[in-house]
Amino acid sequence: MRVLGIIAEYNPFHNGHLYHLKESIALTSADYAVCAMSGNFVQRGEPAVINKWARAKMALMAGIDLVVEIPVAYATASAEYFAHAGVKILDSLGVVDNISFGSETGDIKPLDAIAEILHHEPPSYKSALKSCQDTGLSYPAAVQRALGKYVENHGAPGLRAPEIDQVMGCSNNILGIEYLKALKRLKSNITPVTIKRTANLYTTEYLTGEISSATAIRKNLPKDSPLITGDARHSLPGSSIEILENEFSNGRGPVSLDRFSDTILALIRKMMPEEIKAFPGVTEGLENRVKKAAESCGTIDMLIEKASTRRYTVTRLQRILLYLLLNITSREFLEFNSHGGPQYIRVLGFNEKGAFLLSKIKKRGSLPIIIKVAGFTRTNNPVLNKMLEREAFATDIYVLGYKNPEYRYAGQEFTQNIIRI
Amino acid sequence: MRVLGIIAEYNPFHNGHLYHLKESIALTSADYAVCAMSGNFVQRGEPAVINKWARAKMALMAGIDLVVEIPVAYATASAEYFAHAGVKILDSLGVVDNISFGSETGDIKPLDAIAEILHHEPPSYKSALKSCQDTGLSYPAAVQRALGKYVENHGAPGLRAPEIDQVMGCSNNILGIEYLKALKRLKSNITPVTIKRTANLYTTEYLTGEISSATAIRKNLPKDSPLITGDARHSLPGSSIEILENEFSNGRGPVSLDRFSDTILALIRKMMPEEIKAFPGVTEGLENRVKKAAESCGTIDMLIEKASTRRYTVTRLQRILLYLLLNITSREFLEFNSHGGPQYIRVLGFNEKGAFLLSKIKKRGSLPIIIKVAGFTRTNNPVLNKMLEREAFATDIYVLGYKNPEYRYAGQEFTQNIIRI
Repeated sequence: MRVLGIIAEYNPFHNGHLYHLKESIALTSADYAVCAMSGNFVQRGEPAVINKWARAKMALMAGIDLVVEIPVAYATASAEYFAHAGVKILDSLGVVDNISFGSETGDIKPLDAIAEILHHEPPSYKSALKSCQDTGLSYPAAVQRALGKYVENHGAPGLRAPEIDQVMGCSNNILGIEYLKALKRLKSNITPVTIKRTANLYTTEYLTGEISSATAIRKNLPKDSPLITGDARHSLPGSSIEILENEFSNGRGPVSLDRFSDTILALIRKMMPEEIKAFPGVTEGLENRVKKAAESCGTIDMLIEKASTRRYTVTRLQRILLYLLLNITSREFLEFNSHGGPQYIRVLGFNEKGAFLLSKIKKRGSLPIIIKVAGFTRTNNPVLNKMLEREAFATDIYVLGYKNPEYRYAGQEFTQNIIRI
Repeated sequence: MRVLGIIAEYNPFHNGHLYHLKESIALTSADYAVCAMSGNFVQRGEPAVINKWARAKMALMAGIDLVVEIPVAYATASAEYFAHAGVKILDSLGVVDNISFGSETGDIKPLDAIAEILHHEPPSYKSALKSCQDTGLSYPAAVQRALGKYVENHGAPGLRAPEIDQVMGCSNNILGIEYLKALKRLKSNITPVTIKRTANLYTTEYLTGEISSATAIRKNLPKDSPLITGDARHSLPGSSIEILENEFSNGRGPVSLDRFSDTILALIRKMMPEEIKAFPGVTEGLENRVKKAAESCGTIDMLIEKASTRRYTVTRLQRILLYLLLNITSREFLEFNSHGGPQYIRVLGFNEKGAFLLSKIKKRGSLPIIIKVAGFTRTNNPVLNKMLEREAFATDIYVLGYKNPEYRYAGQEFTQNIIRI
């Protein structure tokens, strides 16, 4: 039996995801596919457009057999932590043979060569990095330059120095390199593969329609009607359309960051800059910048526009705002990290094949498996308990993004049934 | 020169207020009228329908000469503290000859007789109160019963025992008694008078139209249009209509508690019951009741409906929710009280006569006068500073109740000009 692992947000699950899934299964001859998926909040520092159970269902309907959750502190973290958590979860299942990710290169070799250098940090790379930083380059730019110097001098398998800038200039390559670093760090036996990302028009046995980015699709989602039309509709599998429309018609989305405008503004207006400083990513006096913007702005969009610069990117700011909203402090995040990240395998949904896979994971997995959250509230592991409480709280806040008051009650983390199809 | 003082919310200023003002001026032969008015939040535990500057302008347009502010911790407190703060402010001006309040009796004698007993608490009243409480009566019911017993045995000027239940059964009488108690407590030289409240149709030299309660008027305010029509329009002076419509058309109201639903629900979901316990009025395990209701409800209206009982009234709950929202803790409230309540005379607006009155108050007043808030942020009195900071924060939150993002910026406490007409 061969098992494929994917790390994803599926926000929402679209034709590009379907393409990636099918191509990955073909490439790895997988019998089973498991996804480590973000929960109710995602890496751009935003709430997901629909909740995690509905998104798990979209994944299952499209061919994923088992969906497990990336804890919220990591699902909303920078690429390095996000990747580490996703890989750690897949690795801890004890059954995954391959991880497949999308990349601009479509070739694992140059990515792996870079990951190898970044993971081991040989002395000559380190000294090159230091001297690049001393010239005033930003950290990412210094890394890129130092990699170039190192490869020029020492060579690297499957990678030529002039290629580095192009490889490192693509966001999915960067994330892929983080996956590869995490696999090395965990000394994982999982073999990584990559599928070239594409934005072409497809008509294959499994896909009719277009491939658009999740960002483009979210922009084209309806504001006042549950019906998905136009470009968004053409870019989604039928099952995703059905699930999205069902969520929207029940008043459970689309959820967006601006639904939390008032709460975040009130929160920051209440806080002293020193209190804001206690949250991840708030460095270099950013606390004053955030505080000032929250005072002078009437909406979160205005706040972000006001406070963001090339250095303080929109994503970085959004993540900080989310950490404030969800009360994920630096202290808590560091505590999670010092215990190796994710503490549990949280199951969001599975199909029949997934049920079989779960029976294998129960034997081979290296972390406790949580299927019913309610039964797990009092374990002997305080870090696990705290991580799960944070998840439950994140969901208590997430549901306040729904328009329909009936679904805005708290505690859904404990009452929502696992998704089975 | 004779100066009349009125304690009010003017939420909004309506024909009943105009009637009370004109009758009070006539009764006291006043040359000047000054109002101690609630700020952006009011005694029912709600935000005011429009902001305090617009409400000060309504008062000035209707004949008040000077509007000073009741600090937010007191403006949103129970009758006793609200009354104490209002009376203390008027007393500290050093120029007020009369306080006039509305009452159901329209006769000051029975109210003053009750206030006298409640203020002095003679031993036989106290023992009667204790034995009534021992029978399991609620505090207000026990007070009423004990007053009856005391008056039966000892008599009281202008009050017969059988009248007490009727007098104490009316909310404006109760508030009036609190004003009278506060005057006694402060050993004030101000002479109280009362005007009988009425709900009849009027056509007098100064009033055409109807008298409706502020509650009824607020219910009839428009939701989606700035135009005030129907019953609400008939119950308001023209100047109030103009000011309300101007605020509404600028997207600054009507502000209501449900505009803060998300923020309050998120806040309580984040808090532990022990943290909720730190706020005024949270006793007898109410923290668990509030927490539970915030978890199970999707809106603040649902929360209040769920958590309220005969004992835990809607007003009591709303006040608690406001204290949470505005971060007015029991510790802070007690600190304010232990320093005698209001620490300053905050001027919201005045006309030419009010300017003259202010010049007198500057000489005779017993509290610092604040006209420009910005200049007062660093006094030597830390309690004053804290009270003013709380006021500024309350306004930073209040403006998040506006629909128009342009007016939702913080710091308006420091930038808004005083109202002069």
